[in-house]
This record gives sequence, C-alpha cells and structure tokens, in this order.
Amino acid sequence: MKGYKFAGIRAEIKKKDQKDLGLIYCENPAVAAALFTRNKVMAAPVILGKEKIKKGLCQAVLVNSGNANCFTGDKGIQDAVSCAKMAATSLGISEDLVLVSSTGVIGANLPMDKFETGVPNIVTHLSENHVDDFAKAILTTDTHNKIVKESSIIGDKKFSIMGIAKGSGMIRPDMATMLAFICTDVNISALDLKISLSAANEKSFNRITIDGDTSTNDTLLALANGTSGVKINDTDSKKIFQDMLDKVCLKLAKMIVKDGEGATKLIQIIVKGAQSKLDAFKASETIAHSNLVKTAIYGEDPNWGRITAAAGRSGAQVVPEKMDLFFDEQPLVLKGRWLGEQAEKKIAQIMEKKEITITLDLNLGKETDSFLFCDFSEDYVKINAEYRS
Amino acid sequence: MKGYKFAGIRAEIKKKDQKDLGLIYCENPAVAAALFTRNKVMAAPVILGKEKIKKGLCQAVLVNSGNANCFTGDKGIQDAVSCAKMAATSLGISEDLVLVSSTGVIGANLPMDKFETGVPNIVTHLSENHVDDFAKAILTTDTHNKIVKESSIIGDKKFSIMGIAKGSGMIRPDMATMLAFICTDVNISALDLKISLSAANEKSFNRITIDGDTSTNDTLLALANGTSGVKINDTDSKKIFQDMLDKVCLKLAKMIVKDGEGATKLIQIIVKGAQSKLDAFKASETIAHSNLVKTAIYGEDPNWGRITAAAGRSGAQVVPEKMDLFFDEQPLVLKGRWLGEQAEKKIAQIMEKKEITITLDLNLGKETDSFLFCDFSEDYVKINAEYRS
Repeated sequence: MKGYKFAGIRAEIKKKDQKDLGLIYCENPAVAAALFTRNKVMAAPVILGKEKIKKGLCQAVLVNSGNANCFTGDKGIQDAVSCAKMAATSLGISEDLVLVSSTGVIGANLPMDKFETGVPNIVTHLSENHVDDFAKAILTTDTHNKIVKESSIIGDKKFSIMGIAKGSGMIRPDMATMLAFICTDVNISALDLKISLSAANEKSFNRITIDGDTSTNDTLLALANGTSGVKINDTDSKKIFQDMLDKVCLKLAKMIVKDGEGATKLIQIIVKGAQSKLDAFKASETIAHSNLVKTAIYGEDPNWGRITAAAGRSGAQVVPEKMDLFFDEQPLVLKGRWLGEQAEKKIAQIMEKKEITITLDLNLGKETDSFLFCDFSEDYVKINAEYRS
Repeated sequence: MKGYKFAGIRAEIKKKDQKDLGLIYCENPAVAAALFTRNKVMAAPVILGKEKIKKGLCQAVLVNSGNANCFTGDKGIQDAVSCAKMAATSLGISEDLVLVSSTGVIGANLPMDKFETGVPNIVTHLSENHVDDFAKAILTTDTHNKIVKESSIIGDKKFSIMGIAKGSGMIRPDMATMLAFICTDVNISALDLKISLSAANEKSFNRITIDGDTSTNDTLLALANGTSGVKINDTDSKKIFQDMLDKVCLKLAKMIVKDGEGATKLIQIIVKGAQSKLDAFKASETIAHSNLVKTAIYGEDPNWGRITAAAGRSGAQVVPEKMDLFFDEQPLVLKGRWLGEQAEKKIAQIMEKKEITITLDLNLGKETDSFLFCDFSEDYVKINAEYRS
C-alpha cells in the first residue's frame, strides 16, 4: 500500500532465535485511532499510547515481542518513552508521532541495550515489501503470521485495508488479547476512524475467546494515510469502508482463534431466540468460555449437556424445555428433547470437522449474539505451564 | 451415629464395574434442610427436591451416580418420582419423606429397570457401618471417598456431625458442583438448620473452584435426627454447632478441590486490603478461575504477572503500584515491584509444595475474601475430552 513501509528483525529481546522487533513507518503522518485493553493492570506502552493517540496522528509504530513491559512501574514508562525517542531520532521524525507496543512476559524490564542497537538497525530494513517480516516479529506463542488484505472501489478509485495481528493466548473480550495494526490508504477523520474501528472491534475481536484471560497489553491501532485519494466522508463511503474494515477485523479475529494455544478446532457459537441482546451475549460468552465445553469439543463429543448447562448458569433467561441445539445444520436437541442415537451419529461426523457452528435457539425472543472460540487440548496446558521456563 | 443407616451397591447404572446406588436411611424422620444449584438448567431430582424439602422432614435419601437425570423433561421428573416411590415402598415409609439425588452424564433417561432391581436390593444392605459404601456409590470422576466426622460436647452431652460428599469436576460457586450430605444427631428446627447450612455453605462450597462450571445437580442436604439429645436452641449452642458445621463443610470442600480432575496442588488465594467485600470476592474469584494462573501453578511457576493481570480484569478496584503479593509467607512483589531473582528462587521451593497459600494485598482498604482452587494439568483435559466415550 502506497506510503507504508515495514520492517521486522531479530534484536535479541527473545531468548529464542526469532524476530522480535517490528516497525511500521508512514511516509507522511497518518490519521490514527486506537482501542486498548480494559484491564486495570495496563502495560507501560498502553498507558503511554492512550495519551499519544489523543492527537489523532501517528507516523511510526515500534513493536517488540518477548517482553510486555507491564508491571514495570515508572521505569517501564521511561523505557517506553525512550524507545519512542530512539525510533523518532533514527527516522528523523517527531517523538510525538511514534507509538510503541509490547507483548510477551509480564514483569521484566525491557532490555534497553537491545533497543539501542536494534532501533537504528531496523530503520535500515524498512520496505513496502517487508510486511511478512513485521508480522513475524510481533508473534509470541502464535504459530504463524496473521495478515489480511482487502481492496474495494469508491467512485472510480481503489482503496485498501491491510491488517496485521498477533495473539494466541490470554484471549478474551475487553479486548481479546492481541496486537492488531490496521493500515489503510483512505482519507478519513480521526473521529470517524475511531467510530469505525470501535464498531468493527465489537463484532470481531470482542467476540472471540481462547482462554478467558484478558491481556494487559491489548492494542488495536488503525492508521489512514490518505494516499488512495478516497474520501470517507458520507453515508455511502462510510458504509463501504465499515463493511471492509469489519471483514478485515473478523478475518484477523478468526485467524487468532484458529491459532489459539493448543487449538485443533474453530467453533462459532450462535445463541438466538434470546429475550434480550444481553441474554444472547451472556449465554454465548459463557458457552465459549466453558472449559467443559471446550474439552468436550476437543474430544469430538457433542456434549449438549455441558452446552445447555453453561447457558443455564450464564445469567440469561433460559427454559430447558424450549431449547433447540444444532451442530452445523443438524439438530441434536429440539424443544429440550434429545433426538437420540441416530442424530448423534450424524453429528459425530460433523464433530470431526475443523470448523463447526453450534447454534443454540432459546426460543424466547428475537435477539442473537455469537462468539468464536477454539477447543481446549492438553497442548494448551503444556504451553502455559512451561511458558516462562 | 445413632439412628442413621447407610448402603452403597452396584446396580449397573454405570457401565464401569463400580458402585452406583447409595441410600441413607433414618430410623425416624429427621429434620432436613437443603441448598440446590442456582443453574437455570436444573436436574429433575433438584426440581423435585426443592418441593419436597419445604416440609423440613426427610427419612431417606436415594442417590445414584452415572446418570444426572438432567435435561430429561417430564420423563425425568416421572422417573425421579418413581425412584422415590420404590424406595418408600421398600423401606415401608411415606414417599413424601424420600429425597432422590443424581449425578453423572446429562441428557440420558435413568435406566429404570436397574432401579427396579437395585432399590429393593440396596435396602437389604443398610447398616450403621456402611458409610464407606455409600460414599463410594455416589462418586463419578472422584478418585476417593470424601467423609468427614466431627464431635463435640454441649452441656454434658456429646453430639456429632458427619459429612459425605462427591465432586471433582464442574465445580464453581453457586454452588460448587457436588453432592454433599450432612448427618447430625442434634435436635434443631428446620429453619435453624437451613440458616446454619447456608452460612456454612457460603464459607466453604461457595468458595471453591475447579473448572469454573456450575453443575445442574448441586445439592447440599443436612439431616438432623435428634438422637444425641443435644438441643440447638440458644446463642451458645448455635455458635458451637455452627463452628462445627463450618469445619465439616470446609474440610469436605478442601477434599473436593484436592481431588479436582487432574489436580496436583491445592491453592488458597487470599485477597486482602480491598476497598469492598465485593472487590475482594471478584479479585479472588477471577484469580481462582484463571486458566493461565492454574496452568502456571501446575508448571510450578509463580507467574505473578498472570495473577495481577487476573485481578486487573476482575472488575475490582486495583492499583498496580500498591499491590503486594506473597507465596506462603514469602513476598515476591511489594508495592508493585518485583523483588528479583533471589525472592523468586525462595518461592521456587514453595511452588514444589502440594498446598500453597497465595496472598494478594491490594493495600486499598480492609476487606478480605478467599478461594480454594486447584491447578490445571493435561489430565483435566484428558478426563473431560473422554468423559462420555
């Protein structure tokens, strides 16, 4: 995309021999909007980012993996400020226009010596073609890059949105734990960008869960540099832009869940027929977070007792005798009645699939909500029992 | 204990060759009180039990494992009623005085033919000495019996409380998933028994968690047959009785957590210095339910980042720079500062223990709450992925 350059290098922040420092650079300052974690324990770069984003402009984003710079007190803030300064100096731009972002282990100070050599070095690697390097440098326990690119036309001009994300553990709404960076070439105001970003987030990253933990570092940042010449300033253009942004965020969110720590399956739970939107949210969220549901799915067991029991404890209004439950299109429970061995045999085949949609119809009203989640395998435990050692 | 008889037999309700039918019989009708699950998806025996307990009297409790009789509609209710009738007939007592309780797989109908032969059979096994058989017959994924017995003196008379419980998965407050039966020989009113039982439950079974799922069948039942001649009718006697009931319930609760599916360690999380009781509850509950905390403890990793991050997302008021964190007596974080490698080395030894107390002092107020929980191992996933197959 015109006007954006990327880089990703190994700066020896991680112990393992992996890239761990990434940089996005805009040739001209871009309009910027961001959403951050709602966790009260916030990482230093999030505290700093919340202040810096207020001006609605950004020209560079420096991201490191391997260290979250969280729970690091005043020193952590100073370190984040220093990182931004180093990047500004190396790029020859204003420090105010540099955002920093970190992900990794909580509680350790950033290895500043690695940044002192790494930051001047990464600037020399900037290129329009180094998106993959950047995407790789921001990963932690992820097993692969997460990049989505979409283009469309407004008037007679083409515009694009590219999203790059990381995240595979500590994932739950408010926000799903992750870093995600959206680069677009439209011309949009900072306020409109923030509104669009919030709407897209609500339908994507706030509707996924891997393990129910909310990170201290969650960041969703959008940059719009206007190089396409496409203006997003009226109802029609806003709608087209929103639809594409929704699509990019949802694709990234799905990639995150599919790459969930130890995940073997991607599940969508749809709760419909709820009395209220909140009920639909509560029931779908509780099912998506249930360890018993997640382990059953890992075992390819359509354990509808656990699914309906999770709905029952969610706080949503439910009446067991009214519930219908489907795996993909196949019903297993209708009006609270289990359809028997034959239905379960058909579903046994569905359970072998890598992507399954579970629909719980409460048959009490008209509201719907949904979550994306993954199953829960022994590998999740292994990954998280051994993470720091 | 005088006046109580127990039995536990194999009635072939379970596929595995294990006892699966239990019976408690009181020679004379006992005063009774009970607490049930708050899950809106309630098992048939819970729906029935809620009605029957209203009269405050009970003479027999029939319990089966292997089948929860939940999500079984009208047929489930009819089956529960039939089971109570069979027991009443075989015992020669009123059907109104028989409670039934079930635990096991959700969604299948009770195998009534097994009860038709099992119930007349179990009555012939009743004995004061068959508590162990009863305790064994009510187990599901538990690895051992859970029986606690305490005695004390009021005036010059001895009285006793015995508790028998099961539960090792689908455990979280409201209530912790389990069946627990308390037998005592005091003379107490049904109302006072209910009040004491609620208070004891709040401090014990409602403060434990294994996997965050609330069962559809949770039942805590207390029977008081008065055979000790000890009257619980004034402040002093009520206090002595309450203390002992608290002790019995807490011991049973601890046994349940220690026997948690795949558990290798028993953890107490104490949150103190909270601004409100609700904050202390929220923070301790969220930490106790965090999969990331539980897997870290399994890996013997004092991952304070995950503990403080869980507190941060709990909704409780927290200020990272004020937090102190201890493992047993050893501090790891003071005023938000990690104490370094040496402190962590000392804690490495504590992490090898089977029972660990973690104390998070928010230093914001005077309120405290605590939870008991277990770690989270690959075995939890194995047990729950393979449960129905």
